[in-house]
Amino acid sequence: MIGWNSATGSLDFATLHRAYAEGLTPSEVVRAIFTRIDARGGDPAWILLLPREAVLARAAELEAEDRRDLPLWGLPLSVKDSFDIAGYPTTEACRAFSRMAAETDPMVQRLLNAGAIIIGKTNMDQFGVGINGTRTDYGIPRNSFSPAFISGGSTSGGGVTLAAGLVSMALGGDAAGSGRVPAALNNAVGIKPTPGLIALGGGSRAGMSASHNVMTLTVADGVLATRVMIGYDPNDPLSRPEADSFDLKLSVLPTQFRFGVPSRGTRIFASDTEAERLFDEAIARLQGMGGDVVELDFTPFYAAAKMLYEDAFIARRYANLQTFFDAHEAELFPATREIIGWGRRYSGADVFVAQQTLARHAQTIRHMTAGLDIVVTPTTPTTFTVEQMLSDNIRLNAMLGTYTNFVNLLDMCAVTVPMGFRADGQPLGISFVGRALEDSAAASFAHAFHTALGGSLGATATPLPSPLEGAFA
Amino acid sequence: MIGWNSATGSLDFATLHRAYAEGLTPSEVVRAIFTRIDARGGDPAWILLLPREAVLARAAELEAEDRRDLPLWGLPLSVKDSFDIAGYPTTEACRAFSRMAAETDPMVQRLLNAGAIIIGKTNMDQFGVGINGTRTDYGIPRNSFSPAFISGGSTSGGGVTLAAGLVSMALGGDAAGSGRVPAALNNAVGIKPTPGLIALGGGSRAGMSASHNVMTLTVADGVLATRVMIGYDPNDPLSRPEADSFDLKLSVLPTQFRFGVPSRGTRIFASDTEAERLFDEAIARLQGMGGDVVELDFTPFYAAAKMLYEDAFIARRYANLQTFFDAHEAELFPATREIIGWGRRYSGADVFVAQQTLARHAQTIRHMTAGLDIVVTPTTPTTFTVEQMLSDNIRLNAMLGTYTNFVNLLDMCAVTVPMGFRADGQPLGISFVGRALEDSAAASFAHAFHTALGGSLGATATPLPSPLEGAFA
Repeated sequence: MIGWNSATGSLDFATLHRAYAEGLTPSEVVRAIFTRIDARGGDPAWILLLPREAVLARAAELEAEDRRDLPLWGLPLSVKDSFDIAGYPTTEACRAFSRMAAETDPMVQRLLNAGAIIIGKTNMDQFGVGINGTRTDYGIPRNSFSPAFISGGSTSGGGVTLAAGLVSMALGGDAAGSGRVPAALNNAVGIKPTPGLIALGGGSRAGMSASHNVMTLTVADGVLATRVMIGYDPNDPLSRPEADSFDLKLSVLPTQFRFGVPSRGTRIFASDTEAERLFDEAIARLQGMGGDVVELDFTPFYAAAKMLYEDAFIARRYANLQTFFDAHEAELFPATREIIGWGRRYSGADVFVAQQTLARHAQTIRHMTAGLDIVVTPTTPTTFTVEQMLSDNIRLNAMLGTYTNFVNLLDMCAVTVPMGFRADGQPLGISFVGRALEDSAAASFAHAFHTALGGSLGATATPLPSPLEGAFA
Repeated sequence: MIGWNSATGSLDFATLHRAYAEGLTPSEVVRAIFTRIDARGGDPAWILLLPREAVLARAAELEAEDRRDLPLWGLPLSVKDSFDIAGYPTTEACRAFSRMAAETDPMVQRLLNAGAIIIGKTNMDQFGVGINGTRTDYGIPRNSFSPAFISGGSTSGGGVTLAAGLVSMALGGDAAGSGRVPAALNNAVGIKPTPGLIALGGGSRAGMSASHNVMTLTVADGVLATRVMIGYDPNDPLSRPEADSFDLKLSVLPTQFRFGVPSRGTRIFASDTEAERLFDEAIARLQGMGGDVVELDFTPFYAAAKMLYEDAFIARRYANLQTFFDAHEAELFPATREIIGWGRRYSGADVFVAQQTLARHAQTIRHMTAGLDIVVTPTTPTTFTVEQMLSDNIRLNAMLGTYTNFVNLLDMCAVTVPMGFRADGQPLGISFVGRALEDSAAASFAHAFHTALGGSLGATATPLPSPLEGAFA
């Protein structure tokens, strides 16, 4: 059947686009996906699978309309269970919160309008608080390379469904690292756009300053999906007016460039020498690509990162959930309850002091990064087993966010791509971090690095497509 | 003596520049000013006059250096008593706060470096909280047209010293209207730049999101002084990087333009039919200059304005003064104490909710004003007598801020110029309000309006200089 194997055929955009051009149909892909899902058995990556008949009806509808010009035509999608899909419950991974959605969130609708096919709703860290994947009432999704390890979160199920070859893209959110960390820990790609480029609409209740994001298998796929999502929303006050004219695209790298990295003395790997080795190799690779490395004292980045959960900014999480939280506090996952509860400690004056402190860090970082083409960091210092994470949830989660928590707070953007594998087979990610609206540069560096690294897509055996395929559109 | 009369000679920049070119000296001007000050007797407009000998020494120094190329060479200046001048106390109009300054604030130094001569430090509403001029431990400055009326504030003494012909410019601050209101109520000009164009440095302790500002007798003077003040400060996190390349300047108006005004149904004049008449005349004048009037439902502007003091934003005032306030609360002016004390009521969550609400108002206003060249409002709905103000300080002050409180919160800029006189002889002002970084447009409209209106400078008999003099530099 057209060279696309229903058991192993890749779901990356380029492969599916080519297979569709050769006669494969979305219905056949949907049937193959459900067979793969069945083969995995009960999988906590999903909180809700859409009824197979409904998904097949959606595929048939796309075939009947034959709008192959749509950028995401026939591409299967998983949706983090913080988004509303009309007629299905939204749980935020909290049983006490579960409520039927009357309408479909605008960002989900945008992806549907572009031709995507929703397979189901994915597990997550409750209310998007956390980036490890264990904070849920619906079972813990396991890392796609080893069930002993965490999936990363908060879009935990999204990362797993993508890496396991069950979808082409996973819709999630990313304030602290919720899209980048599960992408990194599952050998995939996560684009975290500049805040405000993607409007929030009604979703992401617990992170009103977050960006939505998609995880994909390649940067080119992520760019295509993110382009569909970017746009100004006149009903979202944090939406950026520049979004409507923003042209996210991949470019060929300059032959010479300057990239900043945490200085050797300020790098944090939590004693993970394998992570340290992979990052050293990555720096050497970037130097080989024409990069001049600039070591940055990363102290102000870490200071900003810490403020997300360990200062008055946590009051925003509480503010967003206040009514529900006050009534149902006891029903939350313990670490989530404790963290959101911290939000009550802070006074209004504390918030203004914290915002002034953050502004000082931002100014220091702006001066420090002037003249750099990109900042490059590990996506996480290391990874953890599920057992480790459950035994010390708050501290280890904070460690995971070392290189991701500051990005959104500082109005920056980032793209994570695979950095390689530890000796134990666990993948780690590398992040390309840009200033506000430097999303195209971040994506272009990430794409070039990923292409140079090569390897397979997610946890599948499919090799990374050749560099020019689908890129530089 | 060179045609400049020491008793009545105007201190506007154009007049002094011309007189200096004809041989008048800064020392002669300083002597004339001190004679005028003596003639007024004990004037609560000043909290501190600099020693006459020190001011004469400064004038002599300028004459010796003969740096006439400096933009503010020999121009007398009053400084709001929230700024530090090394060797003199800073009081913030609160006796309990008074402390000797070890260093001179950077913004004062900039004006000195440009050739200005400081005459003294001026009275103000305590800690810059208030725009009426009665909230002070140092006596109440009286309106320069009638002692029965308020001077406006918080740069109350600044407005009076300028209008009374004692200085060429008055340095102050402007978050809620602190520079625009005293300018308006004393028939003068107040430029409130886009936040972040003028760095805050160490001053303005009670309003870290404020802009410094100067009041002057003409818009051209204000533009010249403001140009000296604009610039990026690498030590001020709220300083805008664009400031260093920002070119504030006056342009000739387009022959046709669109100006927004509060719709008739949403205009607020507090029953002041004279203010209403003056604003109607102003609209007609702008129409005569080529303007198409667009009526705006001003509800979201008022809602944003109210948030400055009547929502969680007041916690910022408390945050900025917390240590002193907690120790000396009882020693503050009663209304100031009550207002800053409100800041304690708000939680961190309240601040985030308020910031989201403000962002929604900002978005509505951005859509509403798209396509307009400028927004035009009265600067205040009316004015009040000192007696009225003392009897109902908080409510009447809030009324005064109707058209000024929203500007800084919404990251906008504004220029106030005279709008004419009520039948009782009290002047009122008109404000030209622009979006962020539209300062040149706001100043150009204000300049054109003021020129068309004509009249005298401040409370002096000197007629407004002819339109081209000094402008369009």
